[in-house]
Amino acid sequence: MLIDGLQCGHFTRDTFTDLRKADVGAVTVTCGFWEGTVESLDSIARWRDLVNANADLVAIAHTAAEIEAIAASGRTAILLGFQNSNLLEGRIRFVELFAELGVRAIQLTYNNQNELGGSCYEAEDSGLSRTGKEMVREMNRCGVLVDLSHVGNGTTRDAILCSEKPVAVTHANPDSLFPHKRNKTDDVLRALAERGGVLGCATYRNITGDHYCSSLRNWCEMVAKSVDIMGIDHVGIGTDRSHNFTKPDYDWMRMGRWTRGVDYGAASAARPGKAPPPAWFTEVHHLGLLPGGLKDVGFSAVEVDKITSGNWLRLYRAVFGDGQPVAVATPRFVQSDPVLATTPRLSAAS
Amino acid sequence: MLIDGLQCGHFTRDTFTDLRKADVGAVTVTCGFWEGTVESLDSIARWRDLVNANADLVAIAHTAAEIEAIAASGRTAILLGFQNSNLLEGRIRFVELFAELGVRAIQLTYNNQNELGGSCYEAEDSGLSRTGKEMVREMNRCGVLVDLSHVGNGTTRDAILCSEKPVAVTHANPDSLFPHKRNKTDDVLRALAERGGVLGCATYRNITGDHYCSSLRNWCEMVAKSVDIMGIDHVGIGTDRSHNFTKPDYDWMRMGRWTRGVDYGAASAARPGKAPPPAWFTEVHHLGLLPGGLKDVGFSAVEVDKITSGNWLRLYRAVFGDGQPVAVATPRFVQSDPVLATTPRLSAAS
Repeated sequence: MLIDGLQCGHFTRDTFTDLRKADVGAVTVTCGFWEGTVESLDSIARWRDLVNANADLVAIAHTAAEIEAIAASGRTAILLGFQNSNLLEGRIRFVELFAELGVRAIQLTYNNQNELGGSCYEAEDSGLSRTGKEMVREMNRCGVLVDLSHVGNGTTRDAILCSEKPVAVTHANPDSLFPHKRNKTDDVLRALAERGGVLGCATYRNITGDHYCSSLRNWCEMVAKSVDIMGIDHVGIGTDRSHNFTKPDYDWMRMGRWTRGVDYGAASAARPGKAPPPAWFTEVHHLGLLPGGLKDVGFSAVEVDKITSGNWLRLYRAVFGDGQPVAVATPRFVQSDPVLATTPRLSAAS
Repeated sequence: MLIDGLQCGHFTRDTFTDLRKADVGAVTVTCGFWEGTVESLDSIARWRDLVNANADLVAIAHTAAEIEAIAASGRTAILLGFQNSNLLEGRIRFVELFAELGVRAIQLTYNNQNELGGSCYEAEDSGLSRTGKEMVREMNRCGVLVDLSHVGNGTTRDAILCSEKPVAVTHANPDSLFPHKRNKTDDVLRALAERGGVLGCATYRNITGDHYCSSLRNWCEMVAKSVDIMGIDHVGIGTDRSHNFTKPDYDWMRMGRWTRGVDYGAASAARPGKAPPPAWFTEVHHLGLLPGGLKDVGFSAVEVDKITSGNWLRLYRAVFGDGQPVAVATPRFVQSDPVLATTPRLSAAS
């Protein structure tokens, strides 16, 4: 089976059918970009309706064991994720409430700085803020994966060190392979791996580049080079595939409510629209070609298994635990918290 | 043990200690009056903190079995309730989400008409609205008790008939014993009993009157008269006791954000402030006097047990079930829903 660390867009029954064709056992879906608490609850509710209406194809998973059981039943496990922390509206106690409602991954920031930290597109990355440190530890406690994909490199490094559990860059690539603000520097990726984290290699053309998009072999070679940087236990797949997105969706994703102007996100004025998918990945079910493609660039069966599902499963097992929050010790933090105090304060890496 | 169908205010460790002294095995607390979704989540989170910090005295219950287990462990079960449906912000899907977070009782309206129905203080009671019918059925599905205490008599009767499960008037008295808009007419109380519902007799002086407040015997005689109206299986206790409320709390409770003027709720311009508690109930732990008081007005041990806990437990068992929502059948309602279509449309009773 295959696990995709991140997809977004409007899923339909056809999408789910395609995921089954490709033997995708689990996918983390994007329930929100800029939505606040109420809109995020709306989104979770809509996802429940969608999953209930397609219960023969998909089911919502809360633990690694549930993912395995759902996949074994011939269905795709849905992990509810958010690409921003706006759903929390600054409230640490909402982490537990949303976790209880099924949320399993929260990206600390989307494209813009927020109260938790800096994004990859800010001129200056603030690093992980006071609020950010609290939220990361609370996400640890509640079994929510800390996603750092759109987060700035400095905040990403801070979060890797602050987190008591391994974290993830669910959908990005090494900046050394395709330079882009959305991609991660090698030192950050190595720090991620040292703490047990996982990078989900993306297929989004704007952050992958035309070369790695031009053939299955080229994309799988990008995965092989990522493994050279991070090690075989720390690379997975996070396609960043978007389903059925139209202009209003891209406008919301990029501009939200934060500008009256135009923002291109990972695109550019020269290539503003929807980026075409990789040549080898024009249909969702082409994901099923990946195990063969990875084998063809030299990975053993065991290695293919780690990249396509094993590394995510290990991470999910470590982060989600039994799906229940650990009891809160009050107060968890004091001004001179010994762990945070000894965490080296990293400046924003360029 | 004793079950109190409704209390409100700021609970402290002292309150919990007092409840233990009186052998209160369960109490439904008020998590909100006018609060919307986000503020209601805040309130639930605060309640979790409070309960966690006093875990030797209280625990949150989701089912009748949990109530019995918590009471058997020498603690008081907390049932999370809301005295208004504002927490839902008009979203039927939020019933399931809030139920999952522990909410077990929602009053359809507080003192003012809302999208679900009419309140006891409106000049004209609209009856249960289109939204109200949907919400009542969804509360049935999700194991949330429909509370009708501040609801108008017409909407109350509609809700009794619309609900597939028994409902409650958790804190009010018979209007025939003490005439007040907040109290319920005998015909409504009999309809409530016919459908298996329960009335929680209140001790709030403004809706109980000085006579029934003047002695334990008099209050217990009011309970006996309520039993004469509804039958021994349909009367319980719902004190409406408020803890540590000060003027800003009363102002919020009565005026919320809906008026620039002054509203007295169940009080009046002549007696605007905090109503003094009954003479026999100046301290919370005086609740422990009730079993003896009920025996003294002629109830048998079995009858006392029904009034003090058994009737609530039976209702909770029927409404909460195993604490999990029943699977949703989509679409549940159509224009010509046969059950709703045959529900007699009641005009607002005076």
